[in-house]
Amino acid sequence: MIERDLIRQIADKARRPHPNLIAGIGDDCAVFSTPAGKEWLISTDMLVEGVHFDISWHQPYLLGRKALAVNMSDVAAMGGTPQFALLSVGVPGSFDSTWVERFLDGVLAILDEYTCVLIGGDTVSAKQLAISVSVLGTAASGCSITRSGAGPGDSVFVSGVLGSSAAGLHLLQRQQAAPQLGLEKRWQQLTAAHLDPQPRVALAGLLAASGMVTAMQDVSDGIATDLSHICTASKVSAVLEQCSLPAHRELTEMCAHFNLKQTELQLKGGEDYELLFTVRKGQEDNFARYCRKMYREQGPCQGGGLPPVTRIGVVEAGSGVLLRTAAGDLMDIEYQGYEHSS
Amino acid sequence: MIERDLIRQIADKARRPHPNLIAGIGDDCAVFSTPAGKEWLISTDMLVEGVHFDISWHQPYLLGRKALAVNMSDVAAMGGTPQFALLSVGVPGSFDSTWVERFLDGVLAILDEYTCVLIGGDTVSAKQLAISVSVLGTAASGCSITRSGAGPGDSVFVSGVLGSSAAGLHLLQRQQAAPQLGLEKRWQQLTAAHLDPQPRVALAGLLAASGMVTAMQDVSDGIATDLSHICTASKVSAVLEQCSLPAHRELTEMCAHFNLKQTELQLKGGEDYELLFTVRKGQEDNFARYCRKMYREQGPCQGGGLPPVTRIGVVEAGSGVLLRTAAGDLMDIEYQGYEHSS
Repeated sequence: MIERDLIRQIADKARRPHPNLIAGIGDDCAVFSTPAGKEWLISTDMLVEGVHFDISWHQPYLLGRKALAVNMSDVAAMGGTPQFALLSVGVPGSFDSTWVERFLDGVLAILDEYTCVLIGGDTVSAKQLAISVSVLGTAASGCSITRSGAGPGDSVFVSGVLGSSAAGLHLLQRQQAAPQLGLEKRWQQLTAAHLDPQPRVALAGLLAASGMVTAMQDVSDGIATDLSHICTASKVSAVLEQCSLPAHRELTEMCAHFNLKQTELQLKGGEDYELLFTVRKGQEDNFARYCRKMYREQGPCQGGGLPPVTRIGVVEAGSGVLLRTAAGDLMDIEYQGYEHSS
Repeated sequence: MIERDLIRQIADKARRPHPNLIAGIGDDCAVFSTPAGKEWLISTDMLVEGVHFDISWHQPYLLGRKALAVNMSDVAAMGGTPQFALLSVGVPGSFDSTWVERFLDGVLAILDEYTCVLIGGDTVSAKQLAISVSVLGTAASGCSITRSGAGPGDSVFVSGVLGSSAAGLHLLQRQQAAPQLGLEKRWQQLTAAHLDPQPRVALAGLLAASGMVTAMQDVSDGIATDLSHICTASKVSAVLEQCSLPAHRELTEMCAHFNLKQTELQLKGGEDYELLFTVRKGQEDNFARYCRKMYREQGPCQGGGLPPVTRIGVVEAGSGVLLRTAAGDLMDIEYQGYEHSS
């Protein structure tokens, strides 16, 4: 297919109204205006086959969703709302047009769920599947939440559960090594967490609006590393409580079954795309009240609603990230998550 | 090198002040505000080794420049001024850190020439070198120039010369096939046009400000195809005059030397990154006066100044793109340039 025809097809499929979009796909650039009182956030990621995902188990529809989810999660992590997306794909000649169509369906499905509009991109041929995504979002002017605002005495919170994505990846890898075992249904929330993560956009907006969140980022490399980023940027240290780390019931069962270390997966697993944030010292009670009201009005965590939030530690002076184990010992866990090496 | 260290190195090298930049590289997103009275333009491209460039002759410094130039050219083609850039690179493990440094030096050098700031990106490992660039620019609100405004009777213009980049590529390919020949100095403007194209940002801004330009795009696939885009979007046809197509003196000499068809290279060569635009019917004299004033005040085409503009044809009713040959024949040349196939 000529690139021009493919781009026209994508432009037709992706066309959506947006109050700030002046021109979408089809010219040299997309053109957009700025809503009053807002500032722009932009995040970009490149995902490469064999490094960031494995197409032998990652179906194109879910891969399309995930490629967008990880960037929408970055926008959410600063308290923003995704508005526009750009998508460039380098596709090997061996991929058929059905694969590309399913991938694009996944991209457009998750964008529609968050009323985010695809406004540009590029399609090229490549030896190895490479996906580059950028997401533009808005936040109220001056209200973006960076990593640098945490102070001693602040509480450390995380949304949802930790370690599910890493456990899901473990299950997928086991199944690839021994296909006759199949994927057990009893752990399907774990594989779903890995294959189809949900960006916490609604929760992030409510947290930003609370005025009590001092620093935030999303959990991409595992909280040991992600919290190290907040501590480095804020020039503080943090102590996490092993007993407080939230886990899905399936994670506990699976770790018992395979004799895996649950805390290891929760701290270092990465790709949970939950929100890791700090709440200002002295605001504990106010924040608890705010959360109760938030859940009452917005509904529970199932079905695309708000995930729970859990207090998992405290910010202190100094530097580094420590874990207080169940036995009461303190362990240095700074920058111990998964990191891509370049 | 750990990705974190490389990103910190890039962040340090890329740090520049910008009146609208609130946070650059280093958090989940970059954050920026909008200048009063402006709208945003965004363009993105993915370039893949072996498809879009050949690293055996494209030195990393010039490749870094070109990767940014082609996107800045898209922003210029709508009358915009580049402000911010994002850069993601998938680098094979066989590339050493010097290569990456030289590439980044090229990226930052051309960004500095156009006071455009690198605000985000990603570095990943890949089997094949893949570069994804996005450039954000601004234009006065409501003043972006699309491809769809051309009307019958408008004049077709192009900046600079045509075919130089394609001729330069031809020379580089010949030299690769027979290295003992070397690259002849007498045609160095042609190889430079291919390896280090200049985005026509200053000219584009002046053309947009004239109020007489009805449609514009940059010459990326060759004017036969690029003008077809304008004609399709504007629902018009165009007739080009073979005798009017501007050529560099070196192109004419080289075509004579190798017995190549000069018009073919000028129409279908692509990658000239000149501006192809239409001027409103009846404004011919006004536009000529405007140009004379523009060149008097801004200086000539050498040394980063303004390239000349040449009237090469006329817009008519109907559809398609025709060429009137030197012999007076009319040839259909619609969509005959170079296009990437996907």
